[in-house]
Amino acid sequence: MADRPHDFASDIPATGAWQHGDAVGHRQFLTIADDRPFVLELGGSLRAVEIAYETWGELDESASNAVLVCHALTGDSHAAGELSRAHKADGWWNDFVGPGLAIDTDRYFVVCANVLGGCQGTTGPASVDPATGKPYGSSFPVVTIRDMVRTQARLADHLGIDVWNHVVGGSMGGMQVIEWAIMYPDRLRSFTALASTLAASAQQLAWSALGRRSLALDPKWRGGEYYEAEAGDGPHAGLAAARAVAQVTYRSDEVFQKRFGRESLDSLDGFGLWGRFQVESYLDHHGQKLARRFDANSYLVLNRAMDLHDVGRGRNGVDNAVKRVRVPSLVVSVSSDMLYQPWQQQQMAEALESSGQSVQYEMVESPQGHDGFLLESAAIGPMIAKFIADTNA
Amino acid sequence: MADRPHDFASDIPATGAWQHGDAVGHRQFLTIADDRPFVLELGGSLRAVEIAYETWGELDESASNAVLVCHALTGDSHAAGELSRAHKADGWWNDFVGPGLAIDTDRYFVVCANVLGGCQGTTGPASVDPATGKPYGSSFPVVTIRDMVRTQARLADHLGIDVWNHVVGGSMGGMQVIEWAIMYPDRLRSFTALASTLAASAQQLAWSALGRRSLALDPKWRGGEYYEAEAGDGPHAGLAAARAVAQVTYRSDEVFQKRFGRESLDSLDGFGLWGRFQVESYLDHHGQKLARRFDANSYLVLNRAMDLHDVGRGRNGVDNAVKRVRVPSLVVSVSSDMLYQPWQQQQMAEALESSGQSVQYEMVESPQGHDGFLLESAAIGPMIAKFIADTNA
Repeated sequence: MADRPHDFASDIPATGAWQHGDAVGHRQFLTIADDRPFVLELGGSLRAVEIAYETWGELDESASNAVLVCHALTGDSHAAGELSRAHKADGWWNDFVGPGLAIDTDRYFVVCANVLGGCQGTTGPASVDPATGKPYGSSFPVVTIRDMVRTQARLADHLGIDVWNHVVGGSMGGMQVIEWAIMYPDRLRSFTALASTLAASAQQLAWSALGRRSLALDPKWRGGEYYEAEAGDGPHAGLAAARAVAQVTYRSDEVFQKRFGRESLDSLDGFGLWGRFQVESYLDHHGQKLARRFDANSYLVLNRAMDLHDVGRGRNGVDNAVKRVRVPSLVVSVSSDMLYQPWQQQQMAEALESSGQSVQYEMVESPQGHDGFLLESAAIGPMIAKFIADTNA
Repeated sequence: MADRPHDFASDIPATGAWQHGDAVGHRQFLTIADDRPFVLELGGSLRAVEIAYETWGELDESASNAVLVCHALTGDSHAAGELSRAHKADGWWNDFVGPGLAIDTDRYFVVCANVLGGCQGTTGPASVDPATGKPYGSSFPVVTIRDMVRTQARLADHLGIDVWNHVVGGSMGGMQVIEWAIMYPDRLRSFTALASTLAASAQQLAWSALGRRSLALDPKWRGGEYYEAEAGDGPHAGLAAARAVAQVTYRSDEVFQKRFGRESLDSLDGFGLWGRFQVESYLDHHGQKLARRFDANSYLVLNRAMDLHDVGRGRNGVDNAVKRVRVPSLVVSVSSDMLYQPWQQQQMAEALESSGQSVQYEMVESPQGHDGFLLESAAIGPMIAKFIADTNA
């Protein structure tokens, strides 16, 4: 075995983005095109925006049972459902969204849309720019969480939903949730923000930078213009490196130690510079998996959107911004979350409370780290179900 | 300003390694050449090993006042002293080593050697391989902490030091310290291990992998053969990326938040994908600084040595290994250390105690993170001074 960094599979396409012509699966589409461009918060614009979304359950006659689920960085509209040719991963919140589950699709009309800048059907860097007929690549503008939320409001209009019964999400999803409550205070009845924050912290900016810089170091990223590269010649190693940074911060020391310890794939006799411990092989495996279903430029754009998340921007600070909220909320921390640390959700809960709203704050004791918001369904599911039921009582 | 990743200065040489012909400064040298090669723990060998070291104070007549200071990943023999043409950074432990300080050079003969695999005078990947007349580069063998310690034992022989009065170090330095106590239990009277561990944890392996992979993604790394590259064309961006991973794990969320918050260098209006928040600029600054004084291959080799650190290897586990220790020790944690978490030093202290040795365990309450072992001189200095004095009483 050559003593050099791990090679990724040679059959991975240059981008894992969904593209027109690919199997549609459970996706539906809404085009926000109009006669004028979609103007973005920080100054750019997009001539046409397409939103890919999925729905579960039935909207009732008064359109009062709609729940919006907002996805995190590498999620997409496929909150629930099977893996298939059209959906390259199982529903990312399968334990939460479904008949009889916390977000009960027998009772609620559940909507999840791929975010602006994403790569699973909604307009993003891998989409074709109508002005050039080619993928946007590096010319894709910077988008913000607020831009994402504005596209979701257009989707709500389209679906005939004036007021969401509930808006829920974790991590980057929670950023959208809190912006929903601030931007459209009359368009939701309650919300849940899991493992999220009012503003990205300095350390979160740093983690993001590490991932983005690693990705950009990969010569196969080509400054963002890699869409015509052959399979195996895309920026997979760079995307995997960025994913690895995230993957470590998503979990905890305790979980890694129990799961991997110091086990190695190769014998330590003659172990090389690039011999792999099991934890390294785990990170490579996840990096490769992501490269098959994600787009490197999308990864950069969405990380930047998270960097820019600050509900106080242009609103005289976070405390002032939060005063716009008019509905009850559930705010959840995971005790071992090193990425979105509990102080951030506590700050969110305190800000909401001091602006006069009813807030339920919950700390989930778990070693799972940030990923706890995906994994701790037994603890978090019932909290959400009860909270929604209570606010509807 | 171009919207692309930050460029590094164009005058940085391909390697920051010290090379023969450069100003010697305070360095002294010992050649471990002999008639046979220096055989390494994991199977490789080196035909000649040169050790660069520095000393402060005077060795007393009975050679009983010698203190060995072991440096961490990016340290070198310059534990104390000024920055100069010969020493590209101030002494890394200037607040601890000097007349009247914790490691009192008026009383002790203090020695610090650049580790094997390092780049400030001791044989490492940037050194010339006598077999080829060219730098080792990627052919430099994997070295371990035990190999480093064996070279230090040769240095002790050379200096006429049978028994160190004290051996002290933090982080990778602490790894050497604990190996000293296990490998040469009769050659030290006491030791201090700061912010260190008996074995690298799974999360530490992961952090190391992130840094090493990022570095290797830089095409200017050239598989390790970059020594003939022009200034500005070495693997600086890769080394800076690896350093950035470390830099975040060396500090704490609290310190970053207080120091940088969400301040940005550029206006957020029109902020690009590569616009920089202050924390990003800080990481770039430190990356560039390191590139001027360090060698990228050394960075890889030393990280690998830390990955391989496990005092239990070949000794029936860590608890059994620790039974070889015969002297009292001081073990120190920094409360906010996210890289070498306090449980690791507690485990070390407990293992030492259950093997029947006298152990003083101290937790330093500090927000400084792992770097606390360098920065918290006011708290840690007196602990060490008193501990050494007590064991000499």
